[in-house]
Amino acid sequence: MPKNALYAQSGGVTAVINATAAGVIETARAHPDGIGKVYAGRNGIIGALTEDLIDTSAEPAASIAALRHTPSGAFGSCRYKLKGLDESRREYERLIEVFKAHDIGYFFYNGGGDSADTAHKVSQIGERLGYPVVCVGVPKTVDNDLPITDTCPGFGSVAKYVAVSIREAIYDVASMALTSTKVFIMEVMGRHAGWIAAAGGLAAEKPGAAPQIILFPEVAFDEARFLARVKESVERDGFCAIVVSEGCRNADGQFLSETGARDAFGHAQLGGVAPVLAGLVKDKLGYKYHWAVADYLQRAARHIASKTDVEQAYALGRAAVEIAIAGRNGVIPVIVRKQDWPYVWEIGEAPLGDVANVEKKVPREFITEDGFGITDDCRRYLLPLIQGEDYPPFENGLPRYVRLANAPVARKLPAFELKK
Amino acid sequence: MPKNALYAQSGGVTAVINATAAGVIETARAHPDGIGKVYAGRNGIIGALTEDLIDTSAEPAASIAALRHTPSGAFGSCRYKLKGLDESRREYERLIEVFKAHDIGYFFYNGGGDSADTAHKVSQIGERLGYPVVCVGVPKTVDNDLPITDTCPGFGSVAKYVAVSIREAIYDVASMALTSTKVFIMEVMGRHAGWIAAAGGLAAEKPGAAPQIILFPEVAFDEARFLARVKESVERDGFCAIVVSEGCRNADGQFLSETGARDAFGHAQLGGVAPVLAGLVKDKLGYKYHWAVADYLQRAARHIASKTDVEQAYALGRAAVEIAIAGRNGVIPVIVRKQDWPYVWEIGEAPLGDVANVEKKVPREFITEDGFGITDDCRRYLLPLIQGEDYPPFENGLPRYVRLANAPVARKLPAFELKK
Repeated sequence: MPKNALYAQSGGVTAVINATAAGVIETARAHPDGIGKVYAGRNGIIGALTEDLIDTSAEPAASIAALRHTPSGAFGSCRYKLKGLDESRREYERLIEVFKAHDIGYFFYNGGGDSADTAHKVSQIGERLGYPVVCVGVPKTVDNDLPITDTCPGFGSVAKYVAVSIREAIYDVASMALTSTKVFIMEVMGRHAGWIAAAGGLAAEKPGAAPQIILFPEVAFDEARFLARVKESVERDGFCAIVVSEGCRNADGQFLSETGARDAFGHAQLGGVAPVLAGLVKDKLGYKYHWAVADYLQRAARHIASKTDVEQAYALGRAAVEIAIAGRNGVIPVIVRKQDWPYVWEIGEAPLGDVANVEKKVPREFITEDGFGITDDCRRYLLPLIQGEDYPPFENGLPRYVRLANAPVARKLPAFELKK
Repeated sequence: MPKNALYAQSGGVTAVINATAAGVIETARAHPDGIGKVYAGRNGIIGALTEDLIDTSAEPAASIAALRHTPSGAFGSCRYKLKGLDESRREYERLIEVFKAHDIGYFFYNGGGDSADTAHKVSQIGERLGYPVVCVGVPKTVDNDLPITDTCPGFGSVAKYVAVSIREAIYDVASMALTSTKVFIMEVMGRHAGWIAAAGGLAAEKPGAAPQIILFPEVAFDEARFLARVKESVERDGFCAIVVSEGCRNADGQFLSETGARDAFGHAQLGGVAPVLAGLVKDKLGYKYHWAVADYLQRAARHIASKTDVEQAYALGRAAVEIAIAGRNGVIPVIVRKQDWPYVWEIGEAPLGDVANVEKKVPREFITEDGFGITDDCRRYLLPLIQGEDYPPFENGLPRYVRLANAPVARKLPAFELKK
């Protein structure tokens, strides 16, 4: 009898992480000699630790197929980081107990840099703690900040959402600017890396066209230069469209979102760099402004997902299973770019340890010298990632997403108390 | 020779106002015996007053057809309200001078309640000022607040955007709530009427399902009841999703967005009721929150427009021309609902004076007794309006919207100074 597998989703969910789940489960089902059942951790690694497992074999094929077009994490995800093998030894031992109790020989951990780090440690428990498990990472993060892989599933769809949305807003603002809003600010995700903000640059219809300003976490915010550029854009184009990363910081490294208004109790305003910039524009330039904060809408926007992203997400899930069946422990499948345009990519592999704990920021050569835009190199890198539409099915005017039954697996072990 | 026509877009633009423009222009082109050239006011009525006219006959048919899938106002719009015939007599006289100079016998004014009021006054200049012009209004407003017509073009697409977006965000939040965000707040447009917020209720997959709270301008905000409902939702469902209208007010009639944080200068925080609610949730309940402000993204989101809305927008433009050719001055075509489901509608007509200056709010019977949701009656009204998808063409991963050449018509008159 082949061993069972455990699949867990980790960290912030995306529009396509379920496509990866579909890739894992459908590929495992196609190889009954290689892998037994695929269990999923309910709420990710927390379910693995608390023995709260979901039996995906109870789901009909149509439901698993529908994961491909369903955003969010179908089994639940969590923010919960395992520390080192020594520091968190009891948790790793518990994982082994759960693996043993349910005859689990394969572990797929679907997440970002932190998860790759955890997966890397789990891949060592055979050697360190005596229970052999084939542990394979599966990349996912809208932040696009993993090294080695050409891109991370989830990012391409956010990039497409941001580029489409700011293009639409630019049309809107341009047509009203004479008597109404002159400055429009769209805040996007990216606390440490500006990949998502960079994607806003794809909306420009020709060199120099709107959005006239992109603010990256990688470039220290300079108020005077920012205001000068806003003024120049309004005077030249009639309006100024700005895409700002939530991680935009001043020269002291302080998040702009934390420099803004304070409430009656003196608490910093609750998030939002867009309203801080709007305040600056109003106070210093007097232009009428509007601002939007896309927040979760951007990473959940399956309705405008990138087809390329969906395909990569699925392919990485499939590859993870093939790697596991081949018995290659401690690796992670990655996207390898073979050609920019038309985009040609294939699946490669990297050691989990090489992907863990390395944050890939937007390189300086992808940002224009003035710090406010993206270069042709950046465009060449980004544009392939948003190619193609992959609309979900609609019913009565709304996308029909799947909710799995998520049947629990009977527990066999005593309860386990999670560390707070 | 038939008289020429002047078409002007007014007020906030939408995802489908250009579909109405396509309906006007294509229908006029199909009736060369009835209407000569269609001129457009550059930036709406301002272009009409300053004799800044665009000759749409210079645009190729393919460009006019592409307006059907292009958001924003292709000729420019403006916020500029003409007052009464006596108060603004010089402006109405100027309009007549422009009409005479360019042999304009038809005036199409495409806007909301204020524009219907202006169009109504223009329809009287034949009688009052001796220059006969056939003036026809064409409805447009994302706020859906015009009387008589079943709905207003622009609203159905915003409604679809809001319902799709909050559904996607609900999936996202639900899958992370155990260890992450428990309260998600999405702010939508609607300063006086809660139609757009109401559309968020369409996202619920069964009665009582998320979004658990909708906040309407029509219902006074009650902090204690709001917080109790948030707590109850989190305890029952694990999370709480909230759709809030920007026009949400407290019992004193004060906008919540103006009760929030103040900046270092004591200025009220620059817009945004979502962060104010987030602050409440944090201070009083301590839940982790996230918030989004859709702002212009919602009204510009042509990529997820309602097919029904696009069809109605076009049909109203076509009807306006047919009405004009038939010589019926001072009317506005409207949508008449014949059947809820499947939705059956036809074009009717109303006197402009009946549509002007009446604001249709969400009736109390469309809001649940607790004030936090929509009733079955409301759902029966709204659901037809978001039916069908009408994706724009995409090129290189982004929607291909049209920019018209907007060739100017040679001026014949002295300059005209707009009132400030």
